[in-house]
Amino acid sequence: MSTPTLQGIIAYPVTPFTAEDTVDLNVLSQLIDQLIDSGADAIAALGSAGEAAYLDAEEWQQVAEHTIQQVGGRVPVVIGIAELTTKTAIDRARFAQLAGADVVMISPLAYYSLTEQEIRQHFTSIAEAIDIPIMLYNNPATCGVDMSPQLMLSLVEQISNITMIKESSGDIQRMHQIWSLSGGSVPFYNGCNYLALEALNAGVSGWCTAAPGLIGDQPKQLVNAVQSGDLSTARHLFYAQRELLTFIVKNGLASSVKAGLRMNGLNAGTARKPLLELPTPAQATLKQLLDNLSA
Amino acid sequence: MSTPTLQGIIAYPVTPFTAEDTVDLNVLSQLIDQLIDSGADAIAALGSAGEAAYLDAEEWQQVAEHTIQQVGGRVPVVIGIAELTTKTAIDRARFAQLAGADVVMISPLAYYSLTEQEIRQHFTSIAEAIDIPIMLYNNPATCGVDMSPQLMLSLVEQISNITMIKESSGDIQRMHQIWSLSGGSVPFYNGCNYLALEALNAGVSGWCTAAPGLIGDQPKQLVNAVQSGDLSTARHLFYAQRELLTFIVKNGLASSVKAGLRMNGLNAGTARKPLLELPTPAQATLKQLLDNLSA
Amino acid sequence: MSTPTLQGIIAYPVTPFTAEDTVDLNVLSQLIDQLIDSGADAIAALGSAGEAAYLDAEEWQQVAEHTIQQVGGRVPVVIGIAELTTKTAIDRARFAQLAGADVVMISPLAYYSLTEQEIRQHFTSIAEAIDIPIMLYNNPATCGVDMSPQLMLSLVEQISNITMIKESSGDIQRMHQIWSLSGGSVPFYNGCNYLALEALNAGVSGWCTAAPGLIGDQPKQLVNAVQSGDLSTARHLFYAQRELLTFIVKNGLASSVKAGLRMNGLNAGTARKPLLELPTPAQATLKQLLDNLSA
Amino acid sequence: MSTPTLQGIIAYPVTPFTAEDTVDLNVLSQLIDQLIDSGADAIAALGSAGEAAYLDAEEWQQVAEHTIQQVGGRVPVVIGIAELTTKTAIDRARFAQLAGADVVMISPLAYYSLTEQEIRQHFTSIAEAIDIPIMLYNNPATCGVDMSPQLMLSLVEQISNITMIKESSGDIQRMHQIWSLSGGSVPFYNGCNYLALEALNAGVSGWCTAAPGLIGDQPKQLVNAVQSGDLSTARHLFYAQRELLTFIVKNGLASSVKAGLRMNGLNAGTARKPLLELPTPAQATLKQLLDNLSA
Repeated sequence: MSTPTLQGIIAYPVTPFTAEDTVDLNVLSQLIDQLIDSGADAIAALGSAGEAAYLDAEEWQQVAEHTIQQVGGRVPVVIGIAELTTKTAIDRARFAQLAGADVVMISPLAYYSLTEQEIRQHFTSIAEAIDIPIMLYNNPATCGVDMSPQLMLSLVEQISNITMIKESSGDIQRMHQIWSLSGGSVPFYNGCNYLALEALNAGVSGWCTAAPGLIGDQPKQLVNAVQSGDLSTARHLFYAQRELLTFIVKNGLASSVKAGLRMNGLNAGTARKPLLELPTPAQATLKQLLDNLSA
Repeated sequence: MSTPTLQGIIAYPVTPFTAEDTVDLNVLSQLIDQLIDSGADAIAALGSAGEAAYLDAEEWQQVAEHTIQQVGGRVPVVIGIAELTTKTAIDRARFAQLAGADVVMISPLAYYSLTEQEIRQHFTSIAEAIDIPIMLYNNPATCGVDMSPQLMLSLVEQISNITMIKESSGDIQRMHQIWSLSGGSVPFYNGCNYLALEALNAGVSGWCTAAPGLIGDQPKQLVNAVQSGDLSTARHLFYAQRELLTFIVKNGLASSVKAGLRMNGLNAGTARKPLLELPTPAQATLKQLLDNLSA
Repeated sequence: MSTPTLQGIIAYPVTPFTAEDTVDLNVLSQLIDQLIDSGADAIAALGSAGEAAYLDAEEWQQVAEHTIQQVGGRVPVVIGIAELTTKTAIDRARFAQLAGADVVMISPLAYYSLTEQEIRQHFTSIAEAIDIPIMLYNNPATCGVDMSPQLMLSLVEQISNITMIKESSGDIQRMHQIWSLSGGSVPFYNGCNYLALEALNAGVSGWCTAAPGLIGDQPKQLVNAVQSGDLSTARHLFYAQRELLTFIVKNGLASSVKAGLRMNGLNAGTARKPLLELPTPAQATLKQLLDNLSA
Repeated sequence: MSTPTLQGIIAYPVTPFTAEDTVDLNVLSQLIDQLIDSGADAIAALGSAGEAAYLDAEEWQQVAEHTIQQVGGRVPVVIGIAELTTKTAIDRARFAQLAGADVVMISPLAYYSLTEQEIRQHFTSIAEAIDIPIMLYNNPATCGVDMSPQLMLSLVEQISNITMIKESSGDIQRMHQIWSLSGGSVPFYNGCNYLALEALNAGVSGWCTAAPGLIGDQPKQLVNAVQSGDLSTARHLFYAQRELLTFIVKNGLASSVKAGLRMNGLNAGTARKPLLELPTPAQATLKQLLDNLSA
């Protein structure tokens, strides 16, 4: 299996909805093009930002297929999967592979808390059902499962098509452990926007982020500054973006990014209920943050 | 609206599966009869113990309908609903009402964390769509949302068919607050098995539990002992059951109860993957606990 | 060694200060008499409520001696010890024994976190240095050490003059574990005021509390109601006191009780700086709570 | 007031004890010289590493005076103060000033939790009593008080001789907030060893650490690499040191550093009881870590 090289900015489109609460594929196309134009090195659909948890099965397939088609090979496509049952996760992983995804990013999802053995079996079963590479995704805040670096690295070691790790716990020490325990040999990715500066310094291969939808190539500039050893510029860029990066995480990626897109002139609708539009004061804050960054 | 009087033991059947991983309605019928025979004052299907999160839409409807039919009016029936989108929650609540449920027990379910306003709107929309009473269900460990006593009481006050509260956070102070803030006027229920003794002393109207599936009328005996002021017997009964009550929560209700049912001679299958059968040492512990309680 | 029977209400006087910030032994005498008159079954000086942590060595000895003298054998006297070094803890324990204390209540105190081995050695060294019984005191919030029921019970088992446990973590499950693991054979005490109802039902031998300084025999009435199996009265008494019991813990025992004593006509001064008098709004709340309970 | 420029490595000597458990001033002198020889830009005595919490008043003064004398103006001297009462903290701050300290580093210390108003008054009272600059020190794990960046910055703004912040909570976001909220104008310092790489990138003025006692100028090399924008070398140096930096924090600075000093040939005794020598397996781990770093 040849693993596509994921590095740099892995950009996450939201899933746009029409006024009738159906998926808006036209706007999704525009958003994908905009992300690629801003320098995204890969496109990742149906992650947290993509409201995958709030789509029905048909919508999910629609978004997966359309994303792959719209990207059209310009950059690799990652499809996110976070399902409560192993069976549904396998179905979606197979679908993604058939549809032409380059990578699937898979998080366990918990109602009952899962034991390590249950997590291992979940991933083993999915990995056996597909041939494309899997990025393990640890996001305890949304998925209710917290996988240790040790557990994730052992899955990478034991299962040939599990090859990458996305860490979104918000704890920089986890990234240090991944690097230390693997001798820097396993590609890992930052999934916590406001941890970007330290994650890049810690050795991530890329930054998974929905922020380029709002602030274009500025996250990529930060990646570049760190990679070129220009600490002063990197620090300046990070502190300029930090408040926005924190805002969109704390206020919910889907609601925040959709509100910001509308401010920037792209109507991707609102997040699906029970999620609501950002409260008015939060919208004012967001407007200010975006204005500051576009100056 | 006349609210059915829920009090005493609200018993939770698991959802049995066949060897082919389909819902086993025959075993479900047996289990329901067994629970009613052991003195259950109500039957609550499709809660956490019922693996509702792991059923597809059709299975969910099947279990709801069959439970109501099998109970046949002997005791009230509660149907649990915990859905990520408001739309799906409304659909299920309407279905439950049409099928003849006496009460729906509703928990918000979070992928993105929910604001208080989002929770309010979720419940308001559901309540407006049905006429039967709603029991608010707070279970942060499985549902990812923690509703304060204040929030839940304000929903009870503002929405006429939200009339009851089930508290499963495991914090006895929450129950004290519900009682204190409402002057003891709002019926509330214990959803944390190992908190049973203090919850009963704190003034709950009932105890929501899957334990009667394993130990018959012993939970009801505890309820009766507290209500009759026989502290010594209550303490004795509680300490006798405590380790089992803790075990089934800590090891997952569905997996634990299914393992115990099999030990007691009723084959309800295993929990749905990624959930696994209890590990062998845990099964041995459970066997010992059940043996001690059946002596 | 004959262990004094500690049960019922173990009352905690604050350490009164004069306007010149010296210990006010006259007021201490009055407070001790008042506590015994309100039915205290034992007096415990130099616990958290007694601001032991804020006294210098000489003051500490003064309060220990004076308390024992003033109680004069009417009820047993417990002296609290929580010191950072083992050497100082031993010195104080020996002093307490020489001064005539019936029991010493000992908590480890942490700057660096302590290992189980360090805790064991601390208690072993102190226990070997004295002959009077020791009550282990677990109060993680103030002392920075959290001793499990298992650890405390093993100390009770291994060291002959460690005979009692005071649990102040606020987690009722710890008390259940102490009872279950010891078969109810080790006397344990509630140190968390707002947990009083459930602690009494869980089987504690007594309730360690500063509340009688403010509300006289009402805590004792609650103890009596539970012991006589009068659940309805117990619940009524507990809910009447609950808000006050919570208030004095959340606002700091020393500051709260001293403010309340002044409202009741006894000037015990204020807590030592950096502790400040209760803010004005909190004083108004406290006044209302006391008025409600004295009606 | 002219503030001494603290930057780079602020090195923390432990407090050596003789076999008779008295302070060993000879070894302290050797250790101080060794730290300065390894490139320390300042010496900070009587912090956590210095076991200040475990010294009596006389010993504390002895260590403060001797440190200042031994450093002899080669680099600035910082004296740490963490006292339960405001009065004692003032006494020690005055003593430090008289003895010739350049800076006092002050942490509140909690038995009862402190309100923001209590913390403000504590610092105001101390600051008014001295003329030398104060470094605010936030170390919730050992001191039981967690000061927010907002609170600390407002103290810096309002009180003229509070001029620096040392952040030891282990949360890199706090450092980002200090920088963002102050526009990078307030010098702040990293007190969490294993956060060194990200703290340096986040803009700290220096790194407060006991590690140079064990690994000489390697921490300073890391500081230099970041400052010169050599990310690759910085990352390499950090990952080489990371396990040791984590070890000495997790196992207690005093015990760990004293064990390591002995391995390196300097007998600084053991930490004071109840602290014990590192367990044998931990000593073996430490030996291995030191060997790897000296290779």
